[in-house]
Amino acid sequence: MVKRSLLSDTRLAILESGFGLGGWIPRAISATALPPQIPVADRDRYWMSKALLEAMEAVGLSSPNPSVGAVLVHGDKVLSQASTQVYGSFHAEAMALLSAKSAGFDVKTAECYVTLEPCGGLGGKQAPCADALIASGIGRVIIAAEDPHQKAGGLGTRKLRDASVAIARALTNEANAWHFPFLAYQQKQKPIVIGKWAQTLDGHLADDHDKSQWISGPRSRAYTHWLRQKYDAIMVGINTVLHDQPRLTARDSAWPRARDPQKIIFDPKARLATASSEVLNNLFEATSSGGPLVYWCTEAGTMALPASLEVYRDRLVLVPTVREGNWDELFQSLSNEHQKRYGFELQSILIEGGSQLLTLLMRADQLDACHIFVRAGVLGGTRNRIGRLERGENPTRDLMERDDYRLLATAQIDDDVLIETVSRKYDFWK
Amino acid sequence: MVKRSLLSDTRLAILESGFGLGGWIPRAISATALPPQIPVADRDRYWMSKALLEAMEAVGLSSPNPSVGAVLVHGDKVLSQASTQVYGSFHAEAMALLSAKSAGFDVKTAECYVTLEPCGGLGGKQAPCADALIASGIGRVIIAAEDPHQKAGGLGTRKLRDASVAIARALTNEANAWHFPFLAYQQKQKPIVIGKWAQTLDGHLADDHDKSQWISGPRSRAYTHWLRQKYDAIMVGINTVLHDQPRLTARDSAWPRARDPQKIIFDPKARLATASSEVLNNLFEATSSGGPLVYWCTEAGTMALPASLEVYRDRLVLVPTVREGNWDELFQSLSNEHQKRYGFELQSILIEGGSQLLTLLMRADQLDACHIFVRAGVLGGTRNRIGRLERGENPTRDLMERDDYRLLATAQIDDDVLIETVSRKYDFWK
Repeated sequence: MVKRSLLSDTRLAILESGFGLGGWIPRAISATALPPQIPVADRDRYWMSKALLEAMEAVGLSSPNPSVGAVLVHGDKVLSQASTQVYGSFHAEAMALLSAKSAGFDVKTAECYVTLEPCGGLGGKQAPCADALIASGIGRVIIAAEDPHQKAGGLGTRKLRDASVAIARALTNEANAWHFPFLAYQQKQKPIVIGKWAQTLDGHLADDHDKSQWISGPRSRAYTHWLRQKYDAIMVGINTVLHDQPRLTARDSAWPRARDPQKIIFDPKARLATASSEVLNNLFEATSSGGPLVYWCTEAGTMALPASLEVYRDRLVLVPTVREGNWDELFQSLSNEHQKRYGFELQSILIEGGSQLLTLLMRADQLDACHIFVRAGVLGGTRNRIGRLERGENPTRDLMERDDYRLLATAQIDDDVLIETVSRKYDFWK
Repeated sequence: MVKRSLLSDTRLAILESGFGLGGWIPRAISATALPPQIPVADRDRYWMSKALLEAMEAVGLSSPNPSVGAVLVHGDKVLSQASTQVYGSFHAEAMALLSAKSAGFDVKTAECYVTLEPCGGLGGKQAPCADALIASGIGRVIIAAEDPHQKAGGLGTRKLRDASVAIARALTNEANAWHFPFLAYQQKQKPIVIGKWAQTLDGHLADDHDKSQWISGPRSRAYTHWLRQKYDAIMVGINTVLHDQPRLTARDSAWPRARDPQKIIFDPKARLATASSEVLNNLFEATSSGGPLVYWCTEAGTMALPASLEVYRDRLVLVPTVREGNWDELFQSLSNEHQKRYGFELQSILIEGGSQLLTLLMRADQLDACHIFVRAGVLGGTRNRIGRLERGENPTRDLMERDDYRLLATAQIDDDVLIETVSRKYDFWK
């Protein structure tokens, strides 16, 4: 529980402006100080913020289902609070109903605060939550985010309305931020791609000697590790693998800690074959569950496995890279490989560097959202810079149109500024 | 009052984390929405935040005195609130006492919330505020920031204590941010230098064609104009003058609007002599008060005035630039020239660009604090970048040591992120 003690700075409780793609931003560092500081603008907002905190308990755990939170309230009394369980088990609302009943509470005329529209009954492994809520005699359901699913979206709400259950909305923008991977995946129908990097004011992700490994401070890094559970996979360029020897796990995350992400190495020239044993040890570090897969994207994707990698055959998946610029195809290949092994799609990929891979994706308009940590100093240098032009490129080209991204949230984490942006392709925010 | 209507976005009320060098960051855009949103952590913090808002009313007006705010309270009743008047007239505490008495209130046993330690009687044009408070029979004085003046500091507090007036502290960090120019000037005894710029994530202040004049949005620009009153002078490089044709006034500021800053042009090669009439018209734009002076820093500082500038002789002050690197000497020369004309020192200079001048000052460790607006997009380009290395420079040199600056505040203003940093030379924050 060492990570929790990193907080205790109440200035980090940035309330509204601090709720972003990663949830309550300080929450990832410590949960203890938050609830009393929520501004009770009104009762619905208060209880829905509890439901959002509850949803964050399911980070990573509920995959491929969204991490939903539900709170059952009667008057000013909490009957139960719950989040989505592991895939195949209860959804948040069903879990909350079960928990309230097993505690001996009558949920008739109670209120249910839920961060995402209850499912209405198309597919899924569970009985529809809307039906369960109606059967329980619930009096009112407060929903934060709408389900944008083409067929299932709106179904739960309609069922509740037909059964004369009162319906209200609260904290929709905040819930849209938290559920962004789920919502955006419904719209895109391909894995969503999230950039994450730490940079200085002059855009450097590292110095020219690749020595300044950590631009951001320890609390920002703990937050990043927590975020690694939220997304299904981490992708890095081969330079990052060879220089930083990353393990790409959520090991320094605050609680809860549900999973390590899958690993994706973008390596057109198959340089992983030349990696030192230290690099490979970190990359294939075993965990209690055996460890996630390593997807190796290389132009030689169909080649025989090099001798140095033979020992990792069980956890190494070769994926052929495609013509540069056809990222959609690569991400789809990755999702297909994932589906083959796990039975469901790869919904989200966190790109953690280096500057070259991030800049490539940025130019190709492939970043759906970004978590950017800015250190308010200037490093100087000529390499390892976000948006850096390659020799001979037209210097006047706008790499990222200024208005292509919505600034979703900012927060101060010690000496780092966290900036979260979302592509304007996704219009979930009013 | 058009500027006020720019706000109405309550999300900008960023509470604690939104109070920085420029005061309540949203306040500069509109005052109307704020007071009810202040978190009443306790009574002293509440009333002191009122005093800080009052202090902001004196922005620019009180120069060369600090812009202090004072609130007199009895029980839960406000007897008066006031800020420092124009130089030579009342300080905030004296004004508040006068205002309460003229309204028929008895201030005996009342409380006085004041943002800066009351003066104790060394020099100054006014009778010591500590004496006036004691004579009024005040019961308790709550002070936010201490006066660090070598001789005068602590004197007022001592007098109050000797007269058995209860003393307390509240919002010290916030008041230190607001009074930073005054506090830092006491410590440095030379003009303090504040960088201000708007940049993209990759550090560009403009595109390579110098065409993207405004990186930040309209509300950030209105805030910048408000800030221009806080500092005594604005300094820009000659490239900025020739390309942007700036007027360097506070014309788009929210209310209150007290003054336009002095103007300083850094122009070693005397290129201002070649400026177009549009450039000069903007620079010497007349105001009702005749307009501020333009200090022209050039290597030819002692030369005869070029013909094109002869017409501006009354408002143009030639200041010889010194050897590169000896910025202290230049700033002292500027302050001396200012003293000659106005009878007091130049206490603060806001550097508004361009990237070359800001980078030079940054490398020379001359920036005492910075207001940085970051647009969360990437522009691309090779010029107009903060921290950009000149040809032949050592790329591995750290231009700004990461830990030389304290991150003081961050705020979201529409699609811009405001980042405020303060040099760690100034240890006013705990």
